[in-house]
Amino acid sequence: SLPWMSAQAADEPIQPIEPVKEINLALSELGKKLYFDPRLSRSGFISCNSCHNLSMGGTDNLQTSIGDKWQQGPINSPTVLNSSMNLAQFWDGRAADLKEQAGGPIANPGEMAFTHTLAVDTLSSIPGYRREFRLVFGEDGVNIDKITSAIAEFEKTLVTPNSRFDHWLLGDQDALTATEKAGYELFKNSGCAACHNGPAVGGNSFQKMGLVQPYQTDNPAEGLSAVTGKDADRFMFKVPTLRNVELTYPYFHDGAAQTLTEAVDIMGRLQLGRKYSAEENAQIVAFLKTLTGDQPQFMLPILPPSVDETPVPRPFD
Amino acid sequence: SLPWMSAQAADEPIQPIEPVKEINLALSELGKKLYFDPRLSRSGFISCNSCHNLSMGGTDNLQTSIGDKWQQGPINSPTVLNSSMNLAQFWDGRAADLKEQAGGPIANPGEMAFTHTLAVDTLSSIPGYRREFRLVFGEDGVNIDKITSAIAEFEKTLVTPNSRFDHWLLGDQDALTATEKAGYELFKNSGCAACHNGPAVGGNSFQKMGLVQPYQTDNPAEGLSAVTGKDADRFMFKVPTLRNVELTYPYFHDGAAQTLTEAVDIMGRLQLGRKYSAEENAQIVAFLKTLTGDQPQFMLPILPPSVDETPVPRPFD
Ligand code: HEC
Ligand code: HEC
Ligand code: HEC
Ligand code: HEC
Ligand SMILES: [Ca+2]
Ligand SMILES: [Ca+2]
Ligand SMILES: [Ca+2]
Ligand SMILES: [Mg+2]
Repeated sequence: SLPWMSAQAADEPIQPIEPVKEINLALSELGKKLYFDPRLSRSGFISCNSCHNLSMGGTDNLQTSIGDKWQQGPINSPTVLNSSMNLAQFWDGRAADLKEQAGGPIANPGEMAFTHTLAVDTLSSIPGYRREFRLVFGEDGVNIDKITSAIAEFEKTLVTPNSRFDHWLLGDQDALTATEKAGYELFKNSGCAACHNGPAVGGNSFQKMGLVQPYQTDNPAEGLSAVTGKDADRFMFKVPTLRNVELTYPYFHDGAAQTLTEAVDIMGRLQLGRKYSAEENAQIVAFLKTLTGDQPQFMLPILPPSVDETPVPRPFD
Repeated sequence: SLPWMSAQAADEPIQPIEPVKEINLALSELGKKLYFDPRLSRSGFISCNSCHNLSMGGTDNLQTSIGDKWQQGPINSPTVLNSSMNLAQFWDGRAADLKEQAGGPIANPGEMAFTHTLAVDTLSSIPGYRREFRLVFGEDGVNIDKITSAIAEFEKTLVTPNSRFDHWLLGDQDALTATEKAGYELFKNSGCAACHNGPAVGGNSFQKMGLVQPYQTDNPAEGLSAVTGKDADRFMFKVPTLRNVELTYPYFHDGAAQTLTEAVDIMGRLQLGRKYSAEENAQIVAFLKTLTGDQPQFMLPILPPSVDETPVPRPFD
């Protein structure tokens, strides 16, 4: 347990979000620009922020995402908020960390539909970027490794401290209402915290979706077994963070649950074999809403303009 | 001429951008949220900022825009920067002002593809918006008139003062290089300033595209005649502002000119019957780039979350 935690927090399954430390600020500022730059996509229209909108909890709030040419994505877009705390990235954990993850969507034909070579060519053509990469890396040249390092560094800053629940963990007894406290007690005592725990209230293990009772879905995603090849890992998904869960609707890997009420009911029945009363469900939902923290606050980045040599986006070919 | 102008500026066809005054700040802050909110579109994916990206000069930098379901737009998306100075809105001037304009794209099937009723229902369902509308308007209720007033008030703040050209107009002789000054002399003396003048360097008249020599394009847009019904108004377009023109590529209503070099060459030949040498063209382009001003700087807005009652976006129906 951390020295700055109150005695109270030290005994709880959830810890406050730690402030971000050791950020390479210039690298993160570059990454912020790249995160907002649709020129990393074939169409010139889709950026990371299109699907992980930082005005909307780091998600698109759609059941499944819209990709290049309006293709329907296969799975719900998880929040990038607090994603640096994940044990691995993606619902099935197939990327080890944020840097490895960031290369994926750029070249994914269903998302940004570009190639790493074209992304590098595009950024290299832009004097404002050339200059900034040189400043940040202390050498000439843009490559995909530098691009993904910068995006990952920016993503490390996307934490959401200071939720009312963290106030309570840090010793402010009045930070939660009686209903919210009752919801938290239920969350702990009925077993939710077995899977949703730690500072991110999730993100630190893979667990079977449908442990007690199978989950019905048309979505073909298989979970961890797609990565490990092991049959035992079928339908094991990374436990999502419940930080900011009020903002990250709809819920589950297939985005099938539109409301928290529905998600909590399903979790109770499928993971714990317990049917909550309407009152209990509402208490848990009230608790979950106390996990909304300070959203990252920053100036909208201004992107360096393309020049005559920059490859022209071709959204309609 | 304005009292704060230098003697120099008073004689020029271009005036510095005046600082914005009399902003209703709470109204504009609400409008900023709405400007960034994709829930004003049927899909939940497209906001004003998708096509008028304030990270990219208030445009999408595409030849023609991408609308709902990836529909190809009919015309190049003009910048919203300094659009409050336009004598009318749209290439053909069919909206009188920003407030009238803002209702258009929400209900345009090729853009946001929503209806005003659904937009109002969506915002009304969101407690954070209900509260903010009440605060701003001093009464309960959301309607399309309030929505477009707020967006228009935000757009009034989107001016770009402080360009190097304005520094020069305000008396700093060293703000421009010799090449840029030569370009400005050519711009004035060869006749560009007859149409591109005033503080926005355009935006204050309709003029024929292809005055001396006809403009060849596949784009079916007819210009002002579509509004007035007069044959004489065929191919009259609102003269675009040249403020921030370095950022608003590609050029012309059909987005056919990718570079400023090309646009200046075409303007010289078609509007003035003059073929510029490569050196003259480069001088004019250098001058035009001095018109890039301070881009609006503000925090990325955080949007109030939807709740259980909020209509669910249906991007794929
Ligand atoms: C077209 C939509 C789309 C775009 C564009 C997109 N993403 Fe994603 N992102 C998704 C979806 C969907 C997933 C989940 C995929 C999966 O788990 O199989 C995801 C997963 C992630 C994750 C893993 C989060 C977690 O908890 O597992 C991170 C981090 C992420 N994206 C960051 C980015 C970055 C950075 C970019 C830009 C370089 C980007 N995304 C572009 C839709 C998108
Ligand atoms: C055995 C492990 C386990 C237990 C116990 C568990 N969960 Fe989960 N939870 C998961 C997994 C795995 C997912 C992701 C499932 C998916 O998307 O298919 C999830 C998803 C969720 C989601 C949706 C989050 C999102 O962003 O999509 C919520 C909300 C949630 N759980 C709340 C709870 C609550 C409340 C309880 C107790 C009633 C609970 N969970 C018990 C493993 C568990
Ligand atoms: C799908 C792309 C798209 C979306 C979304 C969109 N616009 Fe536009 N906008 C355009 C295009 C294209 C034009 C030019 C249309 C014309 O002139 O006929 C335009 C014109 C304008 C103009 C007129 C500028 C001028 O100089 O004439 C303003 C102002 C404007 N839009 C603001 C907005 C606002 C506010 C929203 C959101 C409520 C919005 N736009 C949504 C593409 C879009
Ligand atoms: C007779 C009026 C007139 C004259 C003279 C004129 N322009 Fe234009 N200019 C226009 C009109 C109208 C447009 C829009 C045409 C269109 O999009 O179809 C335009 C468009 C432009 C554009 C593209 C702006 C954009 O955002 O798309 C540039 C750059 C430009 N003019 C520069 C110049 C220069 C440089 C000169 C002098 C060589 C010049 N203009 C002379 C009327 C004029
Ligand atoms: Ca890891
Ligand atoms: Ca979700
Ligand atoms: Ca343009
Ligand atoms: Mg429009």
